[in-house]
Amino acid sequence: MTSESARSRRRPGGRTGRVRAQVLDAVRAELAERGYDGLGLDGVAARAGVHRATVYRRWRDVGGLLADLLEATTSDDDWQPQDTGSLQGDLTVLNQENLAAMTAQPSIAAALIAASFRSEEAARGLRRLWEDRYARCEVIVGRAVRRGELPAGTDARVLLVAATAPLYHHLVLLRTPPDPDLPGLAARAAALAAFAGAFVKDPPVAGAPG
Amino acid sequence: MTSESARSRRRPGGRTGRVRAQVLDAVRAELAERGYDGLGLDGVAARAGVHRATVYRRWRDVGGLLADLLEATTSDDDWQPQDTGSLQGDLTVLNQENLAAMTAQPSIAAALIAASFRSEEAARGLRRLWEDRYARCEVIVGRAVRRGELPAGTDARVLLVAATAPLYHHLVLLRTPPDPDLPGLAARAAALAAFAGAFVKDPPVAGAPG
Repeated sequence: MTSESARSRRRPGGRTGRVRAQVLDAVRAELAERGYDGLGLDGVAARAGVHRATVYRRWRDVGGLLADLLEATTSDDDWQPQDTGSLQGDLTVLNQENLAAMTAQPSIAAALIAASFRSEEAARGLRRLWEDRYARCEVIVGRAVRRGELPAGTDARVLLVAATAPLYHHLVLLRTPPDPDLPGLAARAAALAAFAGAFVKDPPVAGAPG
Repeated sequence: MTSESARSRRRPGGRTGRVRAQVLDAVRAELAERGYDGLGLDGVAARAGVHRATVYRRWRDVGGLLADLLEATTSDDDWQPQDTGSLQGDLTVLNQENLAAMTAQPSIAAALIAASFRSEEAARGLRRLWEDRYARCEVIVGRAVRRGELPAGTDARVLLVAATAPLYHHLVLLRTPPDPDLPGLAARAAALAAFAGAFVKDPPVAGAPG
């Protein structure tokens, strides 16, 4: 977040770009101080020193602000999943990063998930974010296939969802306290299932009628 | 739902019980006609023919209504996971039932999940529901251990979350269209991981220093 924020302020862009940077910095600050439920367009406009009408016209609602903040944070970042040399290691680190993002104070990811149930803008922003992140993670599966850890034809997306879903299930839906063992446990379970061929697309059916 | 509704109407209980049955029937009907976003305490009170003040005092907000509806639906029901004779079969049927509940029109489960981000009453009701359902499902794992499918010491809750989380991840968070293959795929992946010992609690560490 911090490095992106610094980058966006250095970015060329004239008045529109400056207004966006001021508004998104204000969203970050309001979220940190007041949390999701204290976030409002009026407060953001006042803190940013930007006309209320501009903020309402361009971002529409709190979901729109959060979605744009995430867009700014992720669209030009160069995040890639870490290469630890093993499938289980890569998935563990990915889950640890997701846990850190979801439990950060403030967590923009957690705020956007909450907002996605109230704002169509936030829901769209969140779908784009998930899609972007899962697409970037597919390299984890490609590397494991090349290393011979996984059978060719393994469906990267299904494997990645299996590895990452338990963490979100606990944090977002079950609302259990964050468990530091869960990233590794969920990664190990998904890796073991994958080694056993659980995620191979269209496996040949033995003895199927020709 | 239907059988529970009929049961609750037959239940003895005097005025308080009658008011509750009328209000919960109204919630069901409003949810079916207007959806979650059209659900309001005033509309429910009017449809139920109950004083607004009574509804506000007893249920507080929409989340309270939904939580009580779920409580009424589940607290005295006799739902048990099906016994298909295999771990993978039991988990597949469980996921199919969850998929049906989440995509029903209207889905009380989906409405309660949405409400849990706005209402503390709904969040509490949902936590109780998850806890109740996962506890009832632990018998699936016990049966598989007794059949010799699974190693003793398998952590039932971690296995059940691994088997069911991908479905909720897709439906609630990723918001992808319901995939009829997913219940079976997620069940198979969790079963294969479980067979490989992924969910054994505190496995002995080979060669650990004494």
